[in-house]
Amino acid sequence: MRVLVVHGPNLNLLGVREPDVYGGVTLPQIDGQLNALAEELGVDLSTFQTNQEGEMVERIQAAMGAVDAILINPAAFTHTSVAVRDALLATGIPFVEVHLSNVHAREEFRRVSLMADIAVGVICGFGPSSYLLGLQALVSQQES
Amino acid sequence: MRVLVVHGPNLNLLGVREPDVYGGVTLPQIDGQLNALAEELGVDLSTFQTNQEGEMVERIQAAMGAVDAILINPAAFTHTSVAVRDALLATGIPFVEVHLSNVHAREEFRRVSLMADIAVGVICGFGPSSYLLGLQALVSQQES
Amino acid sequence: MRVLVVHGPNLNLLGVREPDVYGGVTLPQIDGQLNALAEELGVDLSTFQTNQEGEMVERIQAAMGAVDAILINPAAFTHTSVAVRDALLATGIPFVEVHLSNVHAREEFRRVSLMADIAVGVICGFGPSSYLLGLQALVSQQES
Amino acid sequence: MRVLVVHGPNLNLLGVREPDVYGGVTLPQIDGQLNALAEELGVDLSTFQTNQEGEMVERIQAAMGAVDAILINPAAFTHTSVAVRDALLATGIPFVEVHLSNVHAREEFRRVSLMADIAVGVICGFGPSSYLLGLQALVSQQES
Amino acid sequence: MRVLVVHGPNLNLLGVREPDVYGGVTLPQIDGQLNALAEELGVDLSTFQTNQEGEMVERIQAAMGAVDAILINPAAFTHTSVAVRDALLATGIPFVEVHLSNVHAREEFRRVSLMADIAVGVICGFGPSSYLLGLQALVSQQES
Amino acid sequence: MRVLVVHGPNLNLLGVREPDVYGGVTLPQIDGQLNALAEELGVDLSTFQTNQEGEMVERIQAAMGAVDAILINPAAFTHTSVAVRDALLATGIPFVEVHLSNVHAREEFRRVSLMADIAVGVICGFGPSSYLLGLQALVSQQES
Amino acid sequence: MRVLVVHGPNLNLLGVREPDVYGGVTLPQIDGQLNALAEELGVDLSTFQTNQEGEMVERIQAAMGAVDAILINPAAFTHTSVAVRDALLATGIPFVEVHLSNVHAREEFRRVSLMADIAVGVICGFGPSSYLLGLQALVSQQES
Amino acid sequence: MRVLVVHGPNLNLLGVREPDVYGGVTLPQIDGQLNALAEELGVDLSTFQTNQEGEMVERIQAAMGAVDAILINPAAFTHTSVAVRDALLATGIPFVEVHLSNVHAREEFRRVSLMADIAVGVICGFGPSSYLLGLQALVSQQES
Amino acid sequence: MRVLVVHGPNLNLLGVREPDVYGGVTLPQIDGQLNALAEELGVDLSTFQTNQEGEMVERIQAAMGAVDAILINPAAFTHTSVAVRDALLATGIPFVEVHLSNVHAREEFRRVSLMADIAVGVICGFGPSSYLLGLQALVSQQES
Amino acid sequence: MRVLVVHGPNLNLLGVREPDVYGGVTLPQIDGQLNALAEELGVDLSTFQTNQEGEMVERIQAAMGAVDAILINPAAFTHTSVAVRDALLATGIPFVEVHLSNVHAREEFRRVSLMADIAVGVICGFGPSSYLLGLQALVSQQES
Amino acid sequence: MRVLVVHGPNLNLLGVREPDVYGGVTLPQIDGQLNALAEELGVDLSTFQTNQEGEMVERIQAAMGAVDAILINPAAFTHTSVAVRDALLATGIPFVEVHLSNVHAREEFRRVSLMADIAVGVICGFGPSSYLLGLQALVSQQES
Amino acid sequence: MRVLVVHGPNLNLLGVREPDVYGGVTLPQIDGQLNALAEELGVDLSTFQTNQEGEMVERIQAAMGAVDAILINPAAFTHTSVAVRDALLATGIPFVEVHLSNVHAREEFRRVSLMADIAVGVICGFGPSSYLLGLQALVSQQES
Repeated sequence: MRVLVVHGPNLNLLGVREPDVYGGVTLPQIDGQLNALAEELGVDLSTFQTNQEGEMVERIQAAMGAVDAILINPAAFTHTSVAVRDALLATGIPFVEVHLSNVHAREEFRRVSLMADIAVGVICGFGPSSYLLGLQALVSQQES
Repeated sequence: MRVLVVHGPNLNLLGVREPDVYGGVTLPQIDGQLNALAEELGVDLSTFQTNQEGEMVERIQAAMGAVDAILINPAAFTHTSVAVRDALLATGIPFVEVHLSNVHAREEFRRVSLMADIAVGVICGFGPSSYLLGLQALVSQQES
Repeated sequence: MRVLVVHGPNLNLLGVREPDVYGGVTLPQIDGQLNALAEELGVDLSTFQTNQEGEMVERIQAAMGAVDAILINPAAFTHTSVAVRDALLATGIPFVEVHLSNVHAREEFRRVSLMADIAVGVICGFGPSSYLLGLQALVSQQES
Repeated sequence: MRVLVVHGPNLNLLGVREPDVYGGVTLPQIDGQLNALAEELGVDLSTFQTNQEGEMVERIQAAMGAVDAILINPAAFTHTSVAVRDALLATGIPFVEVHLSNVHAREEFRRVSLMADIAVGVICGFGPSSYLLGLQALVSQQES
Repeated sequence: MRVLVVHGPNLNLLGVREPDVYGGVTLPQIDGQLNALAEELGVDLSTFQTNQEGEMVERIQAAMGAVDAILINPAAFTHTSVAVRDALLATGIPFVEVHLSNVHAREEFRRVSLMADIAVGVICGFGPSSYLLGLQALVSQQES
Repeated sequence: MRVLVVHGPNLNLLGVREPDVYGGVTLPQIDGQLNALAEELGVDLSTFQTNQEGEMVERIQAAMGAVDAILINPAAFTHTSVAVRDALLATGIPFVEVHLSNVHAREEFRRVSLMADIAVGVICGFGPSSYLLGLQALVSQQES
Repeated sequence: MRVLVVHGPNLNLLGVREPDVYGGVTLPQIDGQLNALAEELGVDLSTFQTNQEGEMVERIQAAMGAVDAILINPAAFTHTSVAVRDALLATGIPFVEVHLSNVHAREEFRRVSLMADIAVGVICGFGPSSYLLGLQALVSQQES
Repeated sequence: MRVLVVHGPNLNLLGVREPDVYGGVTLPQIDGQLNALAEELGVDLSTFQTNQEGEMVERIQAAMGAVDAILINPAAFTHTSVAVRDALLATGIPFVEVHLSNVHAREEFRRVSLMADIAVGVICGFGPSSYLLGLQALVSQQES
Repeated sequence: MRVLVVHGPNLNLLGVREPDVYGGVTLPQIDGQLNALAEELGVDLSTFQTNQEGEMVERIQAAMGAVDAILINPAAFTHTSVAVRDALLATGIPFVEVHLSNVHAREEFRRVSLMADIAVGVICGFGPSSYLLGLQALVSQQES
Repeated sequence: MRVLVVHGPNLNLLGVREPDVYGGVTLPQIDGQLNALAEELGVDLSTFQTNQEGEMVERIQAAMGAVDAILINPAAFTHTSVAVRDALLATGIPFVEVHLSNVHAREEFRRVSLMADIAVGVICGFGPSSYLLGLQALVSQQES
Repeated sequence: MRVLVVHGPNLNLLGVREPDVYGGVTLPQIDGQLNALAEELGVDLSTFQTNQEGEMVERIQAAMGAVDAILINPAAFTHTSVAVRDALLATGIPFVEVHLSNVHAREEFRRVSLMADIAVGVICGFGPSSYLLGLQALVSQQES
Repeated sequence: MRVLVVHGPNLNLLGVREPDVYGGVTLPQIDGQLNALAEELGVDLSTFQTNQEGEMVERIQAAMGAVDAILINPAAFTHTSVAVRDALLATGIPFVEVHLSNVHAREEFRRVSLMADIAVGVICGFGPSSYLLGLQALVSQQES
């Protein structure tokens, strides 16, 4: 099973600044944990971070035929990008949407996702573990 | 770690009827999978299903001091029960909200949860695996 | 044809108090009229009243395989119970929703039904006759 | 008892086209069934179909003093015609609103009726039987 | 000055039925009062009543070049007819909107007029006097 | 018949400034026209202008027993003052609401009046003539 | 005067847990204070707590003829139970709605009560004193 | 290919009045241009204008079996007529909706169409060319 | 304990007019009852009524340092005055909001209070007793 | 250049109470800073504070012809006073709206201004500096 | 006449994948058809596709002075990009908005366009023909 | 003090085109004025313009530790970019939001800012002076 992990805007800042607020785990560390788990689960994993909506769209397009599933934390684009929705819709690659924080406990506008209704499922609120659970979910979905 | 699993209304029907629609997994089978995983993770697990809002409230109340976390699929009560919200709020037990289906892809009113903003996190869309991922999430939260 | 009649909360008060307001017909009398009509139509009828949402859910669940149709006046639960909707949805038993009063002529919130869109049809405003018409409707539906 | 049956716009198409979709019953056949039932119930029945809002208004006006009740399927005018509402309001003739389909299960705008709150009652979802039930309802209302 | 008076749907019922509710003044009597006042004011008056939206549209169209102003009580069409609005807009004839009753004190939907923003002015609540005041208003507007 | 005329905030500026925009008629001139008409109609008239909500409330209170009707242009208070509404409600004096401009053709918030539903009637859009028509309306109402 | 006190869901937890948050007063202590005040006022008092909507409905039904007034803190049911509203409506027993906390200062959904408009009055924000004030209010209402 | 062109209310005024505002092209001229293009494209064309909702409904009904497609400018009925929508829905004739003006740049209520979602496509803003483009679109659709 | 009682607009009319509607108790009588109760409770009481928003603001400002609590019936200002809210917010004096009538049972706009969320508590519906209960509430709050 | 500074309700409390919350700067000190800056910029400045909506309206009216621009902090009236808007609109004096706090970061209702759309510009969030920036803005506007 | 064709995000996928769903026509083929038509019409055509909002903005900016009109399918940016709107607004180049699918028949959010009100016109629902019709529309607009 | 100035999409067009509409001042000229003022105030200034959301996000990220404050005119991104909001939130750099035009006087959607509630303050409506005032505001904030 081949899985692409997509990290949205500002996630490159994780753990670099204000570790007391956002936790001390950096994005490379999350990717490391994901790679370790992927190896364990026999998943072929690639990861990608971007602050550009267009790059995210094109990375998803490029994944057609190259991956079996996408694990995506669209971050801010969750709430604003119809283009990312359309890329996911057009390529038809099954995907899981994850969030580090519990989006239901933040600003009102974060409760609306432009992608969740076409996702396999959604996981939020568990910090870096949201990604790990999402990867497991993708694998267990494939098996069933 | 002691965890209480709470299943909401109509979940007792799982797998019994229309297995082609809802899947062939029954609630006892889900509980079986949860117990197996709990044993593996060293978790002390108890499960509970009810179709009565008041019974769910009282089971949560009774969990005070008796469990460290709750794994709850409030089903229909997700969208209608302030009483369950208040029980979770009053007891202060950390909980994870799970759903079998992707609630974002169903009727509009299922996108609103009366509990999600006070949960640790939310997982939906992975069928019975939603529970298993939720249990893992609770354990990994406790460890961090 | 086997039909279950379900009466929702507070309908047990009918005719007992304030007959000048709610009419002098009691719930047993309505059940009597329904039984008489059922006999005439060759319908095997059972009736049930509850003030408990959970009991209504469980009575509907228990009707799976035991009845061919449900005639339901969910009363207050019409507007608040996703659990009853889910029970009706899960069991897949065809049902007709009836109301004694014309719900369109009362408080604004009574115009919204959480079940009407999955019913065979809806009848309201004819007092006890709403039930009798509903039973006839179920029979005529089955025949067509 | 004298009853006027009013059929709204496009109901003249019933059964003529796409019988697999709309059923094979034509409007004359429905009128035939209504006449048969009326005879049985001792009701003096007249029927009327129009695609013109103004004609419907004037037919209702003309019914003043000439009929005791109206059985109306306003079809599309249900959702758009204040003029028909005003005609019903001004003449004060008791009426029952019926619909062939379950309007709650269709487009959102069909859930709003401009007449239902001033009707005796509403019946929807039973195909041609909606009319027959409506006629019975009118008769049983008069008797009570 | 030439003025066309347009009466909307159901106004032909005025005074005929339920004089205790709607007052005993009939539409011909109102037209009589209007004619008397018109003569006094030196106005050339014609009146028209219709229950048909299309006839109202065409009567307004026909008024182009033939009248200097319109006095209109669109009745139910006030709230539903974009076609009448468009006729008034296209012909560009100045008009005053009048209502017998105080529309602000009735159903919520009667507070919205599809024409009021393009009228010279609006008068409501004075019964038949609303028309007389409207005619005076048109004359005094022309003078200023 | 005794009538109190109440002018709301900023109406004291009429005609003083920007006569090309607001017209050249001043408030004293409007009062003059009103007095002339009052004399003609045998009405005992008093007029009052204020920019203070509280003064308007108290002037209405003081009118109890002293006048038979009020002719009021609440101006900005139309849209913001529950206190003026309450004064009119409490004293129970019949009143007519008038506006110089067509409020339906201005900012959205001017379409909402906090008083119109308890007025006898409303007249807007005719400049100073709105007042004269309003006075006539009050007199004709009293006569009927 | 006979008064029934009804305590809604989760109120049985009062004072038991987190006394620093919810205050140290328990429900039995509140009932004790109420009984003391009742004795002082010559009121015959009975109290009842439930976490079940249906039980609350049935306790209110049972109060018909047995009590003169109800003092109710519906807690979570305030915002979700049409059934409790209907029970209060059907029995016609005068009632006062009380809340320990100031519901206007909490989540948005707590500002909407499904019962307040049919209550004699509402008291909120004074902790256990809300009940005592409510009892006094009922007594003073009866006297007037 | 047989095509029916339907022109809605007030379109008969085109070019007759205020040519500086609405352009100097009359409806007969538009029909002339359409006929010329139809001949060129080998289309059998008939045209129809009405100010009556009911006539439009009946003309569409009559087109069943007689035409292959409809080119419709419903004008004001776009925003108010469920009856026209139902006629188009019931007959199942493919249709294209056109507008002379850019409806998105006018009053807010003109942005809502009751028919657009069941149309093949929509064209607006190009004056008389909207019709010509619509006819070409219908032909190109048929070919594909 | 020093308490300021603030009465809002139109409350000076109480009992003077229409005693059958508003009750026969006048504002001086309410103040008398409040003074009697204050004496009993050892409270130093002053009262104030105004129909002017600005005077209410300034009276509240002047209360800083001079009173320990405010008992306020803002009447119409409840729904319209941010200035009174700001005065209460800025001075930080604890206050109780009272209403004579049950605001939940009146016009929709009376259900919104601009002050309730910063009040200690709210009491409504008990006529003059609302004030007496409010005073007791303030005293019992201080004691706790 | 002559500039009038208008301070709205409760701004007279600035710096007097709770300096730790609202800052220690008093209104006279702000006026002092404004006067110093005005002298530096060659501006003829007058200042005015009121808690009365009517006084603010009249001060703005009186400014016609007497000042070239207004610098206004309407405080609570920003959100509630159509009368102040109308005064600014009628006098046509260019004005800048300023706020001490960042109104976007406070209660939802503070994000709506009834005046901002007719202002030259708006400045908020800089404490007393908001006024100084506003004065500079007015001067730079005049120069351009 | 010089025309720039702008294709928005994900349109580069056309025809490449899932030809049974999206049709077998690729973007180069559409461009080919457009070029052929342009040659026929004597139009100087250039085409451009991007998945980046910023690139679309800059391509529109660069078109100032270089083209006479724009034919744009903003795809997902239709509903989310104020920046593209602003670019079109600032450059003032006349443009036609086209869509392959009928946006009115898809998700609710696709019915809102941030550009349509400043377009010359809008065409949707005709697949690749939408572009060809749009080009013709631009040419016919220029000629008129 | 080090300040970064960020200009959003389409601001590079300023003064280049339609100087009669947007003013003749170019972005380099604004930057020149800002640099002159910065020198005067002892501020170390850098400026940046982009039409790409992602570039704006990354420029803000890069400012961490490098500047003390940001002066930002997000232009179109004000209303659409959660990503820019998140970048400002994550880096925690204090910023002032400025707009050339009075956004309150333009399209409805421009009244909503996704950043204003986390800004120090907001300045709009003063053309290029908005920037200069913003820079002064930042400096005066730092000093206080």
